[in-house]
Amino acid sequence: MLERYGHGGDLLTASEAFGHPADKFLDFSSNMNPLGPPSAVEQIMLTHWRDIVKYPDPDVRELRSKLSHKYDIPAESILVGNGAAELIDLVVKLLKPSVTGLCRPSFSEYEEAVHQAGGRIHSIPLQAEHSFILRSEDLISSYDSCDLLFLGHPNNPTGQLIPRQVIEELVSSGKRVVLDEAFMDFIPDEREHSMIKLAAVNKDVFVIRSMTKFYSVPGIRLGFIVAHPDWIRKLKAMQVQWSVNYLAQLIGCAVLDDADYERKSREWLAVEAPWLANELTKLGLRVTNSDVNFLLFSFPEELRLTVKEVQREMGLKGILIRDASLFEGLHDRYCRVAVRLRADNVQLVSELRGMLSDHQNKLLSGHYAGQEDEPLERVFHDRQVDSEQPERLENGTGLNINDMSKRGNLRES
Amino acid sequence: MLERYGHGGDLLTASEAFGHPADKFLDFSSNMNPLGPPSAVEQIMLTHWRDIVKYPDPDVRELRSKLSHKYDIPAESILVGNGAAELIDLVVKLLKPSVTGLCRPSFSEYEEAVHQAGGRIHSIPLQAEHSFILRSEDLISSYDSCDLLFLGHPNNPTGQLIPRQVIEELVSSGKRVVLDEAFMDFIPDEREHSMIKLAAVNKDVFVIRSMTKFYSVPGIRLGFIVAHPDWIRKLKAMQVQWSVNYLAQLIGCAVLDDADYERKSREWLAVEAPWLANELTKLGLRVTNSDVNFLLFSFPEELRLTVKEVQREMGLKGILIRDASLFEGLHDRYCRVAVRLRADNVQLVSELRGMLSDHQNKLLSGHYAGQEDEPLERVFHDRQVDSEQPERLENGTGLNINDMSKRGNLRES
Repeated sequence: MLERYGHGGDLLTASEAFGHPADKFLDFSSNMNPLGPPSAVEQIMLTHWRDIVKYPDPDVRELRSKLSHKYDIPAESILVGNGAAELIDLVVKLLKPSVTGLCRPSFSEYEEAVHQAGGRIHSIPLQAEHSFILRSEDLISSYDSCDLLFLGHPNNPTGQLIPRQVIEELVSSGKRVVLDEAFMDFIPDEREHSMIKLAAVNKDVFVIRSMTKFYSVPGIRLGFIVAHPDWIRKLKAMQVQWSVNYLAQLIGCAVLDDADYERKSREWLAVEAPWLANELTKLGLRVTNSDVNFLLFSFPEELRLTVKEVQREMGLKGILIRDASLFEGLHDRYCRVAVRLRADNVQLVSELRGMLSDHQNKLLSGHYAGQEDEPLERVFHDRQVDSEQPERLENGTGLNINDMSKRGNLRES
Repeated sequence: MLERYGHGGDLLTASEAFGHPADKFLDFSSNMNPLGPPSAVEQIMLTHWRDIVKYPDPDVRELRSKLSHKYDIPAESILVGNGAAELIDLVVKLLKPSVTGLCRPSFSEYEEAVHQAGGRIHSIPLQAEHSFILRSEDLISSYDSCDLLFLGHPNNPTGQLIPRQVIEELVSSGKRVVLDEAFMDFIPDEREHSMIKLAAVNKDVFVIRSMTKFYSVPGIRLGFIVAHPDWIRKLKAMQVQWSVNYLAQLIGCAVLDDADYERKSREWLAVEAPWLANELTKLGLRVTNSDVNFLLFSFPEELRLTVKEVQREMGLKGILIRDASLFEGLHDRYCRVAVRLRADNVQLVSELRGMLSDHQNKLLSGHYAGQEDEPLERVFHDRQVDSEQPERLENGTGLNINDMSKRGNLRES
């Protein structure tokens, strides 16, 4: 499987699995901004690469100062890390929660960090019938069970912000919470949603930001955490010396100035995410509403296709998608794709359409009949009664699942 | 002070302290190979920088494979890290030693890591009168007091390899040991001294290597640890995801092939280290024998100069030296300098000579008389009886300390 190391974007594993050169894949499995990196990055790499003969600034002073200015918070409230992953790990080791409340599904690194630190998990389910949005009652009922909440805001892989009234309830509850705002830069009214300013002064709120998704530089590793200065001092003392490499620091400083890149990215996403969601819906896929640059969807049960099968078929065509069934709380037909530029998205939709159509034809022609342990009729009938919301269907060129189901029944009957 | 964050090479702090632009210093305070980086690094930065839009390989497969080939050890015995600093931290967290034996002086990150992990330190003194070489009897007498030894091989800041018979005794004792071989690449007969091959199969021996000193790329962060595959799996599970950035992995792969760079570096050092040691000795400084690319020396007591004063004077001239008094076990007149290219070394010697001469003249002219709490005569007499070996003096243009002392006495009398 592509997620051998727990995540998307692993091109080397993809190359081993699917036989394409690692740099020839169209990668929808990691959620990078397809506009990036900003032009300042090229300038830095070409003119400043020799600076790697020097140690990086151990205190990341210039970048912290720039972040302080951008977000209007004290530099003493900011610690920069070797990617957000380092900061997720550090903050859990700092707080040593005995039980941590995690949404299911959510980014697997939270659970990894909790287990590393010897803690336990309390699951807060996000439900498909509520579009995977965190509900106030589910959150509040978790308070007694855990001493820390670790929440994606917006959440990955579901793509949803925590609703405003839920987050207000949460931060006023005095419950300790870490908010992972890795994708917050993609939100047009980011300042309305981000809890950065609160985290800088409130000892119960921590905000982690990635700089590699929005600026599309995951290879260089860069993220930061905002917390009360007392916490930042403790986190800094725990952090490995020179953790943030020299080029990451330079790049971080350069991209923050690029307001044009920010505007263009948000303009692209405002058009492209709804377009791709609509196209996938037209294929008969159930697409979760998303606030950000990736989409979670599921294949209709009647197709009897797991995401692993789809991932493999698409991988052989050079297209990487994320097996979202690996996120706890999602069944084996859930898939996540990044939103890319139009031409790439068209290719994704086209390949998916072709694959689904081939599969449908094989189903109808009895191609799989000998490989099944149970009659197709029973499969289709039994699985119709699952608890999920009805598939959203639109007029379009895609598969109509109700028709599919009938045809399946007809074939077997 | 320059070592605000505990180490040399902090050009930003130097700039704040001494008012020069950060990139204008002649830096003798960090121990980088002055020949570097190898030419392959430029090639990688200019042609592959765009690869930072991809996640780094989470398993660092290509570089581990190259290291495996170079050192003739299994790839399963190698974990690559975000600089050696990350691996020092990880291995101590893995082994959780209750008491760790450390040489004094040695690299401060060992102690940092031990304290982070909640352990205690057992000090193994290295003595000036034995040229700071680790002696078998001092090592053996530490065995009962500690459950882990963490040793520099060669040691920093003293620059000495652990003698062959001492290290053989150590690894055959069954005592658990981590050897930091950060500077081993500088040793011409490296293969004779390195314990890498043993560490790959022996569960009690760990070897940490830095790739940033020899290849002069500290800004990009790169090191690796060699241990039994069972340990490597555990270390890997503790390591933060994507810890080793993409460019570090590419650079690591490229430089390992550069046998010419390796040869030239060793040829340079074979000439330059003895030359610089000799010049410093001619200035009346007491220089410790060194196997590597840095030199530890002390200012003669009679000069009544602390390294902090010298560091400040040299810093104002744009030359950075390392205050080695910050290493536990060294007094306030110890200094460490990297060996650089001849022109730089000449400048260092010249500035030191000028400064020492000025200082001597001021001493002789009574310039400091009003600033002293005790008569100069008593200072000179009392401090002559310290336990150190006699200063090594050579005929040369430098200061003669015995003469100095007499003149000081004469002046006061």
